[in-house]
Amino acid sequence: MEVAWSDESHFLIHHVRVRHLPGEHMNLDLAAVYVSDAQYNRKIVFDTSPQAIRLYLLYNHWGMQFLVYAFIVIDLALAIFEDPAVIPLPIWATTMIEIVCLSAFGFRLVHYAKVIPLERFWKDPKNICIIVIILLSLVDIIIYWLLKAIGLFAVRWSRVLRPLLLVNITEGRQLRRALRSIRNALPQILCVFLLFMFSVFMFSLLALKLFVKRGLTTTDGDAYFTSYLEIVFDLYVLVTTANSPDVMMPAYNSSVFFALFFFIYILINTYIFNSVFLAIVYNNYKKYLKQEVRQLVKVKRHKMVQAFELLQEKKGEETVVTQASWNQLVRLVQPDISNAHRELLWSVSDNSKKGCIGKGAFVQLPDLLNMQVTIEKAEQPPLQTLLPPLYLSIPSRLVCRMVRHRLFVYTYDLITLVNAVFICLDEENLLIANTEWVFLALYLLEILLKLYTFKPRTFFSRHKFWNCRQILDIVFILRIVRLIRVVDRIKRSGVQGRIFSVVYYVFAMVGMELFKGKIHFFDVKSTHPDKAFCGNPLLKNSSFAKHNYCKNNFNNVISSFILLLELTVVNQCGFTAVTHVSARIFFVLFHIVIVIIIINIFIAFVLEAFFVEYTMEKSDLQSSLEKKIKELELGIKQYVSDNFAARLALNLF
Amino acid sequence: MEVAWSDESHFLIHHVRVRHLPGEHMNLDLAAVYVSDAQYNRKIVFDTSPQAIRLYLLYNHWGMQFLVYAFIVIDLALAIFEDPAVIPLPIWATTMIEIVCLSAFGFRLVHYAKVIPLERFWKDPKNICIIVIILLSLVDIIIYWLLKAIGLFAVRWSRVLRPLLLVNITEGRQLRRALRSIRNALPQILCVFLLFMFSVFMFSLLALKLFVKRGLTTTDGDAYFTSYLEIVFDLYVLVTTANSPDVMMPAYNSSVFFALFFFIYILINTYIFNSVFLAIVYNNYKKYLKQEVRQLVKVKRHKMVQAFELLQEKKGEETVVTQASWNQLVRLVQPDISNAHRELLWSVSDNSKKGCIGKGAFVQLPDLLNMQVTIEKAEQPPLQTLLPPLYLSIPSRLVCRMVRHRLFVYTYDLITLVNAVFICLDEENLLIANTEWVFLALYLLEILLKLYTFKPRTFFSRHKFWNCRQILDIVFILRIVRLIRVVDRIKRSGVQGRIFSVVYYVFAMVGMELFKGKIHFFDVKSTHPDKAFCGNPLLKNSSFAKHNYCKNNFNNVISSFILLLELTVVNQCGFTAVTHVSARIFFVLFHIVIVIIIINIFIAFVLEAFFVEYTMEKSDLQSSLEKKIKELELGIKQYVSDNFAARLALNLF
Repeated sequence: MEVAWSDESHFLIHHVRVRHLPGEHMNLDLAAVYVSDAQYNRKIVFDTSPQAIRLYLLYNHWGMQFLVYAFIVIDLALAIFEDPAVIPLPIWATTMIEIVCLSAFGFRLVHYAKVIPLERFWKDPKNICIIVIILLSLVDIIIYWLLKAIGLFAVRWSRVLRPLLLVNITEGRQLRRALRSIRNALPQILCVFLLFMFSVFMFSLLALKLFVKRGLTTTDGDAYFTSYLEIVFDLYVLVTTANSPDVMMPAYNSSVFFALFFFIYILINTYIFNSVFLAIVYNNYKKYLKQEVRQLVKVKRHKMVQAFELLQEKKGEETVVTQASWNQLVRLVQPDISNAHRELLWSVSDNSKKGCIGKGAFVQLPDLLNMQVTIEKAEQPPLQTLLPPLYLSIPSRLVCRMVRHRLFVYTYDLITLVNAVFICLDEENLLIANTEWVFLALYLLEILLKLYTFKPRTFFSRHKFWNCRQILDIVFILRIVRLIRVVDRIKRSGVQGRIFSVVYYVFAMVGMELFKGKIHFFDVKSTHPDKAFCGNPLLKNSSFAKHNYCKNNFNNVISSFILLLELTVVNQCGFTAVTHVSARIFFVLFHIVIVIIIINIFIAFVLEAFFVEYTMEKSDLQSSLEKKIKELELGIKQYVSDNFAARLALNLF
Repeated sequence: MEVAWSDESHFLIHHVRVRHLPGEHMNLDLAAVYVSDAQYNRKIVFDTSPQAIRLYLLYNHWGMQFLVYAFIVIDLALAIFEDPAVIPLPIWATTMIEIVCLSAFGFRLVHYAKVIPLERFWKDPKNICIIVIILLSLVDIIIYWLLKAIGLFAVRWSRVLRPLLLVNITEGRQLRRALRSIRNALPQILCVFLLFMFSVFMFSLLALKLFVKRGLTTTDGDAYFTSYLEIVFDLYVLVTTANSPDVMMPAYNSSVFFALFFFIYILINTYIFNSVFLAIVYNNYKKYLKQEVRQLVKVKRHKMVQAFELLQEKKGEETVVTQASWNQLVRLVQPDISNAHRELLWSVSDNSKKGCIGKGAFVQLPDLLNMQVTIEKAEQPPLQTLLPPLYLSIPSRLVCRMVRHRLFVYTYDLITLVNAVFICLDEENLLIANTEWVFLALYLLEILLKLYTFKPRTFFSRHKFWNCRQILDIVFILRIVRLIRVVDRIKRSGVQGRIFSVVYYVFAMVGMELFKGKIHFFDVKSTHPDKAFCGNPLLKNSSFAKHNYCKNNFNNVISSFILLLELTVVNQCGFTAVTHVSARIFFVLFHIVIVIIIINIFIAFVLEAFFVEYTMEKSDLQSSLEKKIKELELGIKQYVSDNFAARLALNLF
């Protein structure tokens, strides 16, 4: 049910009817594009000829964007089918698909070149990047086939470049921003990293002097801390806490005082340096966020001023935009907006009810459009709508009162508790296993009763995550609902995930070329004689094979990703046993990129999201919108979105 | 050489000579106490009778404070000599020492009771705490001796209370503040922790349903993921990353898709929750820091206003403090202040040279006294002072020019690099081993040449850490000198370390009572038959014994501390194998307290120290001091300390 305006004409009194000449139509179209750009923070400067505008609209169409992402996903997914493959496909097939993808990216780029001025196109590094990536991929394909044809060994090295497409497409704005903030932090990180490595080298030197002459041995009987580079590597791994306390035990067993050495080492290199890395990343992240927001607000304002100038009319001294043009504009920009919502936004903009607004009020339009106002329909429980007499009968009312009663909630809390106890009990007992069905039935009953009693909207709330509140009631943690919003926000902003994907993909590609086939996994039931050492004699009696880590290999893209995930959590590099020791560089590099930079970015993001949720106030614009809603007594229950500026800032990343 | 004032009488023109009546003397003394309290942020409200003031001065005397700390250290160190002992002493000896310590604390408390009003004494919870600790310790000693006398088993349970003395003595202000900030964060932490545990329980339930019927086994052949509580514990440990990837391997070996389960689990419970815990602690830490600073500034101002009212004189309309009283006051508060320094501070306070200052300027005194102004003596290289003709001769000048030259620095950088390469080379080679002496000689030469050329102060700078700059020159990282100040600050503020000590001590005491003697360490050369399983048959074939972790035990206070340190870095709990499974609660508790709370406080502290160093500006007062120094052209090179407000805030913790 739409909110009915008591007197629609009330808003039309001041309307100045303007006849629409063809040129005006075009102006309106162009203004709509500007507003839309401002709304979605697009910074593209496009040609303003009618044809270019049409192309530009097509370029920004969600279908085209979807296609681009689809082709990128297909291109990246090729790693599943290419050698070393999870599901092998013939090489000609994967090559064909890749060429199709590359042409799609080419077409998209040509489209972009038609939309924006040509000199701008060639100045933009991201376009150059895409061209280079496409060309290099083609060159790689040709070289690969040529080498294959004459029977030589060939490597598809251009696969490393594929994730860069995700960064360089027009839609990769967020990702580029995140990477730029990382780049800005790099000089400082490098400085501290050098200091950190210096500290590791000095401690290693000290360790060499302390231990080399003592002839200590590890539990495997190997010499302990005798080669300088070995010590450096071991102590570097200790920073990741992966080999604690093993690396310390031989020294500690020989004397208690050596524990002091490791204690100081861990304090400085694990705790202090890690915190400083976090501080640097966080500091830069915040600084950069502010800069970006400032710049975005500028671009947004500029776009809106352009839109204003297209629609402005003289009214006495002032230049204004009339409600009529404003209405047309909003309908163009957001065709699905309801009349009530649109009138509400107008009444916020035109606070003094003049029938027209100046530049200051006009530029707020994208922010107003971005605010989510949900119009609550005066809902009733479904049964009440269908069979009112039955629903309002005395037994039905009793049921409703029961469900609304506190005791109902407590009863179900108790049931859940009993269920929890039953779950912890013996699984094998048939009787206990069957109680599960009873509990399931009870929960079903609860849902049905609640659906019967409450309005559907109360039951199914807007954010899907809110439904979890139902479960949380059980543990009485209503205070943390805000926290759930933080987590929700983290999930909605996919940038962190995309950065991880880009880095993982690159390392997976390189890792697969370097380490594929070195380690074999044999099925649990297999009785192959090589099973005990993962199919590689070098791993005989190694702890890697003993722990049955054979499936942690680079033999295909999926196991590579899982291995890299494990490396993210805990550094664990049995690979150096089966290849050259220099392979350790690969693992150390991965650790530096992931743990020192990317994870800290992630933590910084969570910290910032948390602080925004817990400390910021509502923006002026938002409160004026809320005030207006109250003033008008529209019966509209607003779910006004979070703090505008902070939300804007976070959505950037 | 003191800076000579051109005309000392210049400052004396406005002096109003005041004859000192006995009452005035007393006022001055009292005012000095107030200023001193304001300077060191003491909040004690004391009696103002002359006798009480004298007692109060004695109470704050550094010697008394030193004695208190000495007795606390002795009391805490008793754990080394008490059973289970590192160095066993007879029980009567340790008991005697403990009684001496307890009486010292008692005397200190009586002293405090004489200083402050009695009703305040009994209202203060920290006094009650100390009394209770002393009484409980005495009761414990008596019970222990009685039980021993009749031959029963006895536990010295009051040892757990000892570190609480460190918190409750008057000097433990910083520690109390830190603990209060933790307490303030607790409700929020608890909420999130409940949510976290809820998530762990739900994931465990999912894991049970997923794996229980598959009959998977670990590498040791044990059943994998069959008991609910086992799963909960394993997944909890996975949050600490200690058992990654072992806990995942059986599932991953059986199917790739199970890796997804662990991936989602680690993402949510390790990364997101850990970041949220950090965010909560950091947020509360900042909020609390602000509150504390605000309150401290208020107390400080109040003390200074009291001092002002004691010294004020009428001068026309205004009440002022004359330079004469001010001088006497400053001399009383800081007897070792130089005349030049004192005159400088006065000229900052009395900016308009009236010869007296109002309340506004007077209350700044403690801040001015806290600013470090180092008067640089016009130093010369020592040889120049001793033998000027020789030092100024042409060859000597040539040497000096050489040392000052850039090439000299570069040469030594090169030497260091060569040295680094040599260090990495084979240790066994005698020739290479002997080159070390050459390098040592070269470094010694460098130091001597620099001592010859530069002023001593240039060489030995004030902060001991600054000397490291010499080393850092080598790696060209001058930009991070600020960072060193951050680390320096972390080191100077010992609160973090003291919090760690308190928590470690409590857990070590409990751990020793619970687990002492369960595991035995045999010397490397020992051939005892029980060596293979750490002297406990329950550990036969366990990975704990295989890795030779036997020295990680609770058999004395030192090995307990080292074990707790290891637990801080990586959770590693073989103890549950030799005692009841419920011992796991001990380890989980320790993990919650240390990793979730204390380490996050530490990180928050580093973050804040970093931000203060990198973002804050100098305070007004500080810049006016610097301006004055420039104005007066005193030839005083100031090492004005860091931002006052921020420094104040950080020194609180």
